Amino acid sequence: MYFFLNDYNDIGRPEILEAILKAKDEYNIGYGFDSHSENARNLIKKSLKNENVDIHFVPGGTPANVLGVTCGMRQENSVIAATSGHIQGHEAGSIEATGIKIETIKTPTGKLTRKLLEEKLANFNSELVTVPKKVYISNTTELGEVYTKKELEDIYNFCKENNLYLFIDGARLAAALASEKCDYDISEFCKLCDVFYLGGTKNGLMFGEALVIVNDDLKKSFINLQKQKGYLLAKGFIPGIMFETIFSKEDGYTAGADHAYKMAENLANGFLTKSYELAYPFESNQVFVKLSDSEVEKFKDFAAFELMGDMDNKKIARFVTTYRTNEEDIKGFLANI
Amino acid sequence: MYFFLNDYNDIGRPEILEAILKAKDEYNIGYGFDSHSENARNLIKKSLKNENVDIHFVPGGTPANVLGVTCGMRQENSVIAATSGHIQGHEAGSIEATGIKIETIKTPTGKLTRKLLEEKLANFNSELVTVPKKVYISNTTELGEVYTKKELEDIYNFCKENNLYLFIDGARLAAALASEKCDYDISEFCKLCDVFYLGGTKNGLMFGEALVIVNDDLKKSFINLQKQKGYLLAKGFIPGIMFETIFSKEDGYTAGADHAYKMAENLANGFLTKSYELAYPFESNQVFVKLSDSEVEKFKDFAAFELMGDMDNKKIARFVTTYRTNEEDIKGFLANI
Amino acid sequence: MYFFLNDYNDIGRPEILEAILKAKDEYNIGYGFDSHSENARNLIKKSLKNENVDIHFVPGGTPANVLGVTCGMRQENSVIAATSGHIQGHEAGSIEATGIKIETIKTPTGKLTRKLLEEKLANFNSELVTVPKKVYISNTTELGEVYTKKELEDIYNFCKENNLYLFIDGARLAAALASEKCDYDISEFCKLCDVFYLGGTKNGLMFGEALVIVNDDLKKSFINLQKQKGYLLAKGFIPGIMFETIFSKEDGYTAGADHAYKMAENLANGFLTKSYELAYPFESNQVFVKLSDSEVEKFKDFAAFELMGDMDNKKIARFVTTYRTNEEDIKGFLANI
Amino acid sequence: MYFFLNDYNDIGRPEILEAILKAKDEYNIGYGFDSHSENARNLIKKSLKNENVDIHFVPGGTPANVLGVTCGMRQENSVIAATSGHIQGHEAGSIEATGIKIETIKTPTGKLTRKLLEEKLANFNSELVTVPKKVYISNTTELGEVYTKKELEDIYNFCKENNLYLFIDGARLAAALASEKCDYDISEFCKLCDVFYLGGTKNGLMFGEALVIVNDDLKKSFINLQKQKGYLLAKGFIPGIMFETIFSKEDGYTAGADHAYKMAENLANGFLTKSYELAYPFESNQVFVKLSDSEVEKFKDFAAFELMGDMDNKKIARFVTTYRTNEEDIKGFLANI
Repeated sequence: MYFFLNDYNDIGRPEILEAILKAKDEYNIGYGFDSHSENARNLIKKSLKNENVDIHFVPGGTPANVLGVTCGMRQENSVIAATSGHIQGHEAGSIEATGIKIETIKTPTGKLTRKLLEEKLANFNSELVTVPKKVYISNTTELGEVYTKKELEDIYNFCKENNLYLFIDGARLAAALASEKCDYDISEFCKLCDVFYLGGTKNGLMFGEALVIVNDDLKKSFINLQKQKGYLLAKGFIPGIMFETIFSKEDGYTAGADHAYKMAENLANGFLTKSYELAYPFESNQVFVKLSDSEVEKFKDFAAFELMGDMDNKKIARFVTTYRTNEEDIKGFLANI
Repeated sequence: MYFFLNDYNDIGRPEILEAILKAKDEYNIGYGFDSHSENARNLIKKSLKNENVDIHFVPGGTPANVLGVTCGMRQENSVIAATSGHIQGHEAGSIEATGIKIETIKTPTGKLTRKLLEEKLANFNSELVTVPKKVYISNTTELGEVYTKKELEDIYNFCKENNLYLFIDGARLAAALASEKCDYDISEFCKLCDVFYLGGTKNGLMFGEALVIVNDDLKKSFINLQKQKGYLLAKGFIPGIMFETIFSKEDGYTAGADHAYKMAENLANGFLTKSYELAYPFESNQVFVKLSDSEVEKFKDFAAFELMGDMDNKKIARFVTTYRTNEEDIKGFLANI
Repeated sequence: MYFFLNDYNDIGRPEILEAILKAKDEYNIGYGFDSHSENARNLIKKSLKNENVDIHFVPGGTPANVLGVTCGMRQENSVIAATSGHIQGHEAGSIEATGIKIETIKTPTGKLTRKLLEEKLANFNSELVTVPKKVYISNTTELGEVYTKKELEDIYNFCKENNLYLFIDGARLAAALASEKCDYDISEFCKLCDVFYLGGTKNGLMFGEALVIVNDDLKKSFINLQKQKGYLLAKGFIPGIMFETIFSKEDGYTAGADHAYKMAENLANGFLTKSYELAYPFESNQVFVKLSDSEVEKFKDFAAFELMGDMDNKKIARFVTTYRTNEEDIKGFLANI
Repeated sequence: MYFFLNDYNDIGRPEILEAILKAKDEYNIGYGFDSHSENARNLIKKSLKNENVDIHFVPGGTPANVLGVTCGMRQENSVIAATSGHIQGHEAGSIEATGIKIETIKTPTGKLTRKLLEEKLANFNSELVTVPKKVYISNTTELGEVYTKKELEDIYNFCKENNLYLFIDGARLAAALASEKCDYDISEFCKLCDVFYLGGTKNGLMFGEALVIVNDDLKKSFINLQKQKGYLLAKGFIPGIMFETIFSKEDGYTAGADHAYKMAENLANGFLTKSYELAYPFESNQVFVKLSDSEVEKFKDFAAFELMGDMDNKKIARFVTTYRTNEEDIKGFLANI
């Protein structure tokens, strides 16, 4: 069975497990005030080339999104997102559960743009609507796309001009940074938004994301907010150890993602060679292919993948690669289709 | 340094780490639908002698408390708790953040009683107040006390008579079950409340609690609620593996706690022998001692412990034992005081 | 100036003001437990031919919508509405502020249909999404349309088959009942949904709506919910007096609306006669007309109306009639255009 | 029957009703943007001797409290109040329903003090608790007490020193200003807090309170917040007319309250003369008397009043005077006891 179901099917990278084991006799203090977490934060700051950010480790993607959206918000504020945004359709109402409305934009791709934001914001000039205060985008997007530097700058400039914060969901930020489409590196990211996260769960950690707060407005009392939402781990040193491990090597954050990208590229090319059509352009470790019902049935016998709706009377099948995907997997799978 | 600061200072029990390592090459599906989680749920059900409960693994204590309180609640409902209850003073407003008011009872000890509940509930007969629908207690309590079976039955009967659900915070349920004061075993617990959890974080797991829903009213759509609150781990198989490991041995859940209890007993006896006064009766792995300011200063040189407020012009110092505390630690510490 | 801006520009119908004045020396008890409110509730029940409903008077439309949506909901539940629904775009996030997500359907008109609901509900079979539990529709719709009995029955049957409650926003229910398109009368309405309201603010009251709860599930502890949301007036006898007045005459609820409908019909016919195009079919007291920019400018000199977006490169202008609109107004206005 | 049940048993003062009637043929625009509301705001600003405040009319006390508490708050923030505070025990969880925890102080009287606040705030220096950001007090208090200028200044200075906002619930502010204990007048009130309201419902209006925002931080997007909570009346001109009427005469705001105070003074003196004991010192229009069970039974035959709990084995009976209470009422009632 070739496993392309998702990028969170593993326990964790070997070096992560080793680091965990190595710490088994330690006594650490709680809630992220331990030395591993401190060291991890310093390593990340170094990698980001920014000493002035606040970094907090949270258990997963929804926690990171809830905190990224709620921090610094007043009760009348709303967040703008694409209808395809993860917070809109895949988190069971987690944002609204905190009292915040998501004002959605129907987008032609998975990306927001300056123009789409301008058109949307024009509707918010009355006392009968919410007051948008933050913009949410995902990089990579839910469709596997990678924002270019110019696209991010345009959006962020729009945000700053309009008194909006920009929050980037980085559940798959490693995948974005590993993409050939990506024209920036991690050290530039703090200039492109107010708050973002370095995804861990989908990048070989057992769990955990590192939320990076760039804008001072959003830093205040953050740990209290994190505790309130139930996202402050008692054993905060565990994500601390994991991020410390990843960031202790240069390019450690994207090492697995770089490999996954190459595997996805092979896979996408293989599909194209065999005349399958991609549903969205190939840009990262998620490859979306249009399959007929019979193809879906056939593929199911030897591969695990997810169906993500319909397009052109076909199914959209998503194939995801990870740091564990190897060339033989790709070859073997392609030989079968 | 003798480490009595808390019971969440370790990575996890050796058998937990071994089990994690062992699974390193597996491919598991997400969100708790994997076979480890399924097996863990079955083992727990066997241990509880109850096939009709629903079991969900969540990342920590606050998540378990938020879910235990919010499940099955309508917007006008409130939860009754002691002012010393963990949800009231130590979770940064996590319950209120979901819209639910905690109606508090000032209690002489850390326990609620049938009588206290009767007196409280008598105030709720007007349209100008909330509608209590759930009672929250902790076992062990925040003061280290263990409820007796009779006490739990009295409270639960009161709840059933008054159309209230009973939720038991079991962050330290293993410590309660390991106590000599405890006159019930784990297999009886489903008869004593509507929903509770088997704490893991404070019982040697890397993280994670197992929420057990006994009452059918509270089972419906629970995973959606869990996802909404951000407490559904993508790699749900990791807590699955940990609970599977713990519950695969008879008495596995309390093995570490049994040891911790004996160590705490030694410690409490040692304090008493040396004429220190306990702030609360010794009943479990948390020993609360009254110390003068100079004693506190002195002890700090060779021991880690937490201060928990004042009593009789002294400080209340909390010493916590765990599965890792050994007899030499206790002897060594006692020799110093 | 011909005033067609909205239907809430008046203090209130003369008989309302008389009734208020008449009660000026009374002493009434608070919170809706007075005899006027009781009498009003009985008169409404008589009019609805249903003794088993609960009736609560609230200060306005948003309060009625918030209560109609929140009653009986658990935290994981969501409400389904059209994107054009008043709660979605015109109440500043009032529903989300209570923690509830609105799952929206893009509709070709302002109406939901059984088919649209079927298609939508098919998406909600996962733990990663909300759990829809209520459907919200408005009658008249935000575009002035009136649901037929068959349409309502189809929707309500779908709701019952799928364990969903149906809530009908009746801010302009009098306008719906007064329409020639309406093939049911007020006494049939309790069979068509679980909870609805009889709008007052837009029907000649100083303020206030009468929320009618048909389904027993939704009745429990309702006044506590109303108080919690801040919608329980201390002087609850004032809306009581107003609804008592309106419902003490047969057809009192629709008397003003019947007149408004006729005036709107004259207006719509006048527009059509003069070759203006309606943006939506004429069905009730709101007439939507497509106007060029120059027409808008010209009309502004002698008439008050509201612009509601664009269609076919024209503006959609809304003209609203009320119980105070008279034939001379219509004639005079039409003579000018 | 002598009616001392409460101060919201009347339709409204005669001049209010006259003003309403007078406007019956007007066409007004909605949501408080009409000329009556504008004029009312200007008259109030003149009375407050402050042009820089924002003034918003809301339907009642709970709305004013919810808005006064929620404005300017982030999600991690809490509000500090006395356990006797109206928002804590008499509003069915309205504050918590917005996600905000009330951190309560048990007070010897109904008043908060600088000292009590200092002691309370000392507990909030951890990431495991909420972040207090606002203090709530009522003037008069729930026990009928009136804060002195010095007391308010001490509290407000403490707030400013500690980065807290001060919100004063003025449901009975007219009663406070009318008291002989009051050593400030309305024009000084803007210097004593960040946000407060001029109560209308309990001061002879049909309904409505005027929220006054002094601190710029709290002004931003306020009407959107008001709409979100369902407290923005479509016919906003009605409270506008009422406040315009009251404030168009010098001392118009306290005229009724001045009379009520004198009547309450007569009543309190009468009780004392007849050897009844007051439960709390007489300071305003609410007189709290200790009555035996038999006295309660006897009094019920000829008077309406409310019981408010127990003290010294007696009932606390509350007698409230209003602008309608007359000397004959007091004499007649006292003659009976």
